[in-house]
Amino acid sequence: MERLPGFRDFYPEPLPSRDAGWSFDARQYVFDKWRETARRYGFREYDGPPLESLELFTTKSGDEIAGQLYNFTDKGGRAVALRPEMTPTLARMAAAHERNYKKPIKWFAVPQLFRYERQQKGRLREHFQFNADLIGETDPAADAELIALLIDTLRSFGLAEQDFVIRLSSRNAWTDYYRSQRRFSPGTPGAVPARAEHNVKQAGSAPGVPSDWAKEYDFFQTIDKLERTPPAESEKKLAALGFSLADVNRFIESGKPTTELQSILDNLGARGLRDFVKVDYHVIRGLAYYTGVVFEAFDAKGEFRAIAGGGRYDNLVKLVSGGKVDLPALGFGMGDVVLLELLKARGRLPKFDAVTDVFVLIEDETLRAQSLKLVQDLRAAGFAVDYPLTPVKPDKQFKRAQELKVGHTARVESDAYVRIRNLKTREEIVAGFADVANHLG
Amino acid sequence: MERLPGFRDFYPEPLPSRDAGWSFDARQYVFDKWRETARRYGFREYDGPPLESLELFTTKSGDEIAGQLYNFTDKGGRAVALRPEMTPTLARMAAAHERNYKKPIKWFAVPQLFRYERQQKGRLREHFQFNADLIGETDPAADAELIALLIDTLRSFGLAEQDFVIRLSSRNAWTDYYRSQRRFSPGTPGAVPARAEHNVKQAGSAPGVPSDWAKEYDFFQTIDKLERTPPAESEKKLAALGFSLADVNRFIESGKPTTELQSILDNLGARGLRDFVKVDYHVIRGLAYYTGVVFEAFDAKGEFRAIAGGGRYDNLVKLVSGGKVDLPALGFGMGDVVLLELLKARGRLPKFDAVTDVFVLIEDETLRAQSLKLVQDLRAAGFAVDYPLTPVKPDKQFKRAQELKVGHTARVESDAYVRIRNLKTREEIVAGFADVANHLG
Repeated sequence: MERLPGFRDFYPEPLPSRDAGWSFDARQYVFDKWRETARRYGFREYDGPPLESLELFTTKSGDEIAGQLYNFTDKGGRAVALRPEMTPTLARMAAAHERNYKKPIKWFAVPQLFRYERQQKGRLREHFQFNADLIGETDPAADAELIALLIDTLRSFGLAEQDFVIRLSSRNAWTDYYRSQRRFSPGTPGAVPARAEHNVKQAGSAPGVPSDWAKEYDFFQTIDKLERTPPAESEKKLAALGFSLADVNRFIESGKPTTELQSILDNLGARGLRDFVKVDYHVIRGLAYYTGVVFEAFDAKGEFRAIAGGGRYDNLVKLVSGGKVDLPALGFGMGDVVLLELLKARGRLPKFDAVTDVFVLIEDETLRAQSLKLVQDLRAAGFAVDYPLTPVKPDKQFKRAQELKVGHTARVESDAYVRIRNLKTREEIVAGFADVANHLG
Repeated sequence: MERLPGFRDFYPEPLPSRDAGWSFDARQYVFDKWRETARRYGFREYDGPPLESLELFTTKSGDEIAGQLYNFTDKGGRAVALRPEMTPTLARMAAAHERNYKKPIKWFAVPQLFRYERQQKGRLREHFQFNADLIGETDPAADAELIALLIDTLRSFGLAEQDFVIRLSSRNAWTDYYRSQRRFSPGTPGAVPARAEHNVKQAGSAPGVPSDWAKEYDFFQTIDKLERTPPAESEKKLAALGFSLADVNRFIESGKPTTELQSILDNLGARGLRDFVKVDYHVIRGLAYYTGVVFEAFDAKGEFRAIAGGGRYDNLVKLVSGGKVDLPALGFGMGDVVLLELLKARGRLPKFDAVTDVFVLIEDETLRAQSLKLVQDLRAAGFAVDYPLTPVKPDKQFKRAQELKVGHTARVESDAYVRIRNLKTREEIVAGFADVANHLG
């Protein structure tokens, strides 16, 4: 029987072959770094259910999102979906109990996420994602703290300035651009809503939504796709919205930081992290719920898809809580797949094979009981210990010890003594039974 | 919006309230102990997809299992299910690449598992389970190794002899009992198959299956339910199969270990673990795929459901691989829910609130840039550091530091000096900027 297409098996190292699946140890290495860096930044870990009501995701992203989800009707008749992202769950959880946590709330998670796009054969349908979010603070200092976490997370893998760049941008800058240009261009004027209040629901076909928001959303989508769309096509789309590609490109090339972005750059500068970031207005993020600063991390050579992306979503908690809780928030997500590809390409993944500390050789079966006692004592002392479960020829036992890359072998010589061999130095000593652990440092 | 019934949110400690959900930190504590003990025993971690083809589970457990699954048809028309247990995935993975791993294969996993039983309102529909399995060894020494791991896993939580017991039993003992009695009782004699070859598919209605196997399976099911069924009812069921309850009870009470069980007891005795185990033939395990030794772990007071359960399943890898790979195997599963209940009841869960090491006080905003540099330096040195993102009154900052239960506060006094306060000893010192980390031991 086969696993489902788009899913991964994670095997212990050493991996049987390149086709055999993914390395559990590499995955754990990535998770450990994510957790360790988040801990240094004072972020606390949470988790939610991998299955949520479909409504949680459509409320945030519009009904169209259902086309990309693993959604189904459960046996109780509920419309449910495997989570495609963590933010809606986070917003739901934070809204439910925010009063009990001091602001700002700094939380992270390492969820497995799922997407089902019927067209995309061969593409993965699940991945793991490091999600870090900061809730309850509007000041750009929060954005800087989160971006610093993103930079230090990538640095924890041994990646340096020459390996990656954070492209920093702002929805607000684009909203201001859009509205300043619109004043002089054809189209419906009407009441201009306060910026940063749109979301997909509003941008969609909901009744009572000003048509200008739908246009603004179309404009954002066009900017988002600018780098991967032929110029003529972008030109045409922009013209239909009353803009010129030349002018849009001038705005991008100016790269002039807004006050908000400058404050973030200064903050990162104080930390010594300024050189990891550049303002790049190409970045606008496809997801419509972002409301302010947005950013993406890329490998410096531009060989891979985005390593991470995020930004502010100051309206989401309010939306998900049905208006009950209104908290500003921002966050980013970093998937395991692109990161692992990049780490492999840059030679930054360590070897994972050595996990057993001691191999207990049992060459004299009359000493098996004492040998089992030794195994037990060493494990109780914290060592990872293996031994032959059944009678095995001495040379095969030693070969097994070498395969396991143990630091030491230990062989019971009598009720009282154990012979210990350091496989690196080849030194041998005989120690009292109770004294073995002290010789395995 | 609400989470789905039967699913859990995991919040960071301190938990807002008892109703607020589950503690992420307690869950992580349990996972860490599971992983740490498995590591000492030389077990390697793996994982598979949370979603598998429905067939993987029905092949193992019969079509009836579908009634308890989260199963659905995906957008590609595949019958799929959220995994209700890990063993079929393990068997699939091991069969696919067993040639590349030395035997015995010692693997473990910490999967989230899912069940949907429509009737059981209020019951959890997911849990996490520690799964440890040993593949490729028929000798009872393998069973002993796995049971020792189970015992030491429970001991790693501070549970001792007076807290839990492993009830050890054997399908083979019951098969022998069944067949020895059947010779003298009414019913179809027919060819008696080699023992330990039945599984649910064979026990079910598949064509060509000797009817005696179905009866043997019924007999096992009756034994499995003996402790929670009124005696008169069990008596009736057993009589219909040609047995007497009195005789069955005599066999159970004898508690005489088979040769195989005695070998396991001796092995555990050599490790000093004999007193954690008792032979108890009440245990037979409901799942039909077990083929030999079976066991369950219970709290000594009998207040909770089983903490863990497992046994041999020598035919499963062959079954799942369509006959291509034939490997003996055994394993156990330990869920997080009963374990957490037990640890809480016995006062064995530690407090989880202290995670931040240092709080950097920023009382003079003109020193914010230098303070951010200090935050960065300390985090780079491995400390978990927090600080006020925006200007906050000094007394509120100090209160926050106390709430976070940090060991130290640090306050930049100038470009060159930092005042460090140990919150336990209340000692204060002033250190050079580059020297701060050395004073935080």
